[in-house]
Amino acid sequence: MEPSCGSRGPGPAAAAVAAVLPAGGSGERLGGATPKQFCTVQGRPLVSYTVGAMERISWISHIIVVVSPENIEKMNSIVEKYGHKRVTIVRGGVTRHRSIFNGLKVFAENNFSNQLLQKPEVVIIHDAVRPFVEEDILSKVVMAAKDHGAAGAIRPLVSTVIASAADGFLDHSLERARYRASEMPQAFLFDIIYEAYQQCTDYDLDYGTECLHLALKYCKTNAKLVEGTADLWKVTYKRDLYAAESIIKGNLSQQVCIITNVKEDVAQVNFLLHESLKSRIKDKKYAVEETQKLVDMLEKSNTPLLYPVVLISVHLDVSENTSCSIGMEELTRIKKFAREVKKKNILLYGILFQYKDCLLLQETVNSAAALILALIMDRNPELIGQLLVA
Amino acid sequence: MEPSCGSRGPGPAAAAVAAVLPAGGSGERLGGATPKQFCTVQGRPLVSYTVGAMERISWISHIIVVVSPENIEKMNSIVEKYGHKRVTIVRGGVTRHRSIFNGLKVFAENNFSNQLLQKPEVVIIHDAVRPFVEEDILSKVVMAAKDHGAAGAIRPLVSTVIASAADGFLDHSLERARYRASEMPQAFLFDIIYEAYQQCTDYDLDYGTECLHLALKYCKTNAKLVEGTADLWKVTYKRDLYAAESIIKGNLSQQVCIITNVKEDVAQVNFLLHESLKSRIKDKKYAVEETQKLVDMLEKSNTPLLYPVVLISVHLDVSENTSCSIGMEELTRIKKFAREVKKKNILLYGILFQYKDCLLLQETVNSAAALILALIMDRNPELIGQLLVA
Repeated sequence: MEPSCGSRGPGPAAAAVAAVLPAGGSGERLGGATPKQFCTVQGRPLVSYTVGAMERISWISHIIVVVSPENIEKMNSIVEKYGHKRVTIVRGGVTRHRSIFNGLKVFAENNFSNQLLQKPEVVIIHDAVRPFVEEDILSKVVMAAKDHGAAGAIRPLVSTVIASAADGFLDHSLERARYRASEMPQAFLFDIIYEAYQQCTDYDLDYGTECLHLALKYCKTNAKLVEGTADLWKVTYKRDLYAAESIIKGNLSQQVCIITNVKEDVAQVNFLLHESLKSRIKDKKYAVEETQKLVDMLEKSNTPLLYPVVLISVHLDVSENTSCSIGMEELTRIKKFAREVKKKNILLYGILFQYKDCLLLQETVNSAAALILALIMDRNPELIGQLLVA
Repeated sequence: MEPSCGSRGPGPAAAAVAAVLPAGGSGERLGGATPKQFCTVQGRPLVSYTVGAMERISWISHIIVVVSPENIEKMNSIVEKYGHKRVTIVRGGVTRHRSIFNGLKVFAENNFSNQLLQKPEVVIIHDAVRPFVEEDILSKVVMAAKDHGAAGAIRPLVSTVIASAADGFLDHSLERARYRASEMPQAFLFDIIYEAYQQCTDYDLDYGTECLHLALKYCKTNAKLVEGTADLWKVTYKRDLYAAESIIKGNLSQQVCIITNVKEDVAQVNFLLHESLKSRIKDKKYAVEETQKLVDMLEKSNTPLLYPVVLISVHLDVSENTSCSIGMEELTRIKKFAREVKKKNILLYGILFQYKDCLLLQETVNSAAALILALIMDRNPELIGQLLVA
């Protein structure tokens, strides 16, 4: 996906908008010890994807990530490792509302000593565990907040909502069509939401969860509700991590790059492979250097830091005899090399392309393309260094 | 997973409980043409997993699946293909409530001509798109329905629920802790829910979605609410299909079976592989027959009908020279054979196990075990017939 750094479309002027990401949750619903924002997908913590999604948007001047005290060091190392910019880490409180309030205070109490932390006109509040947020919905809630003081994304309810009586029996059920799920992102005129947090009670701070409610209760601001898309969903349960993994793998596999080790016949095979993979290729590169050079180049680009890069080395087998044209020694060498580059988050696979019978060429090309797509889609670290026969 | 056919624990006596699965939904939220209950996971429609989950429970005497008229034939062929028993397919109405009502009518209007469709004491209502329902929660809602007339599974709300005013602004938000999501399964004394459906208005039938609400409104029955587990969730969006796929793959990969083609040294390698895979092996089999025999056996067992069976053929390479001990011809033969058996829903992969250097044996075993686990977890149909080097 093309980063939308340059976009200045519907977003307001720079420095007018900042974001606060509460990331202090304990992740108890995942049933694991790791809070969900720090669970990794393709080796990278979820919170880093979310920060990345906000960072891509040039008109968000600064991002506050609020984490619980015990995770400040972890968050620091994430920001450093993945090269996040415009991020300030803030110590969270014991509840969600207290954490968000702490995040807002950074802007309110900053005496212009740090230009970047200047009080914004509009502040976005977004969950660290909603990594698939798009510029479109961020822009919509920000514009609505400018006009109306507060705005939030909503979605239709998936289940009917019911109220239970104290004895565990149904009291009443709500008519599903009249209600909506309140999702993130939300946006506020900074002065309104900060005022609301200053006014609100300890009970609100300890038991409440909804920023729109505070703005309504303490500032009489009825938020504008904006229909969001399904990808705003919050990673809550283990199954959501599976879903996030599939979506991220699907997004990553939109970029294909092919290397071969034999120069003769390369043109035709490359052409056919490219034709066969065309619909998936957004970034065409014809690399003829040795794989090692490419690995060095990739390493320098820092790309493998953000996600595992798949390298597929296509070996053309043009020999006439019926045995493998690649001996066991070379297979072992490829495996060893693959293990080395895996440490750099590069997944190397080999494809042996039999190029003997011109009649079968298209079939072999199709088979190679299917293998390549499967390898880049799965990114399976256990299969690195294998030579698959097309 | 062990089928719980024999269990008679907390469930009521046979013939007292039947189930109705509304499966008439249009699946518009998935954004695809196929209604979600007919989307396939590992080649098998979701509704078949759900029917299978109900069918495993011996004290559910009969299962009514209600589908829209245009899908009756499709559902018939699913029942036949996957060998579902105790299932009757019923023509659905234009809304969820009308479909459920049609399902209930089958029992109410059956004049004892069919013993299986005798009116049950308790009827379970469950969604066709919640395939991971367990006996425990079914048993709990049935027992509670016997005692109180109606019962339903509930879950904590993931998002705050809000009411919007007509102009698209926030009206009020609900205190999240006081409300619950109403999920499935639900259970009712048959006479109560049938009475409720007979009494209810066209408006209820056309716009309502909640059976618990009908029992309360028309029979003054306050349903007992039973806390369910996270796996009751409803497959609603495309991401839910990804999650379902991962969960089903994970469940399937709990069973491992190993074949090798060389008898000498098999004992030691098998022993080490089993040691290495032990924690995942629930079903140990030492097969020495030819792979073809095993394929025939599997086919006869009907197992590959229910899910893709992974067959991994481990070739021991005991030759002294450094080239492949398996020639290109044999590789091509394996691939061809793999393509043949794939038509029977059997995924065949090969592993080449180098058995030359005793010092490296444990490392090779570990590598083979990792490859095997990756293959059975991924069940990637594109990689069949490949010979992977351990």
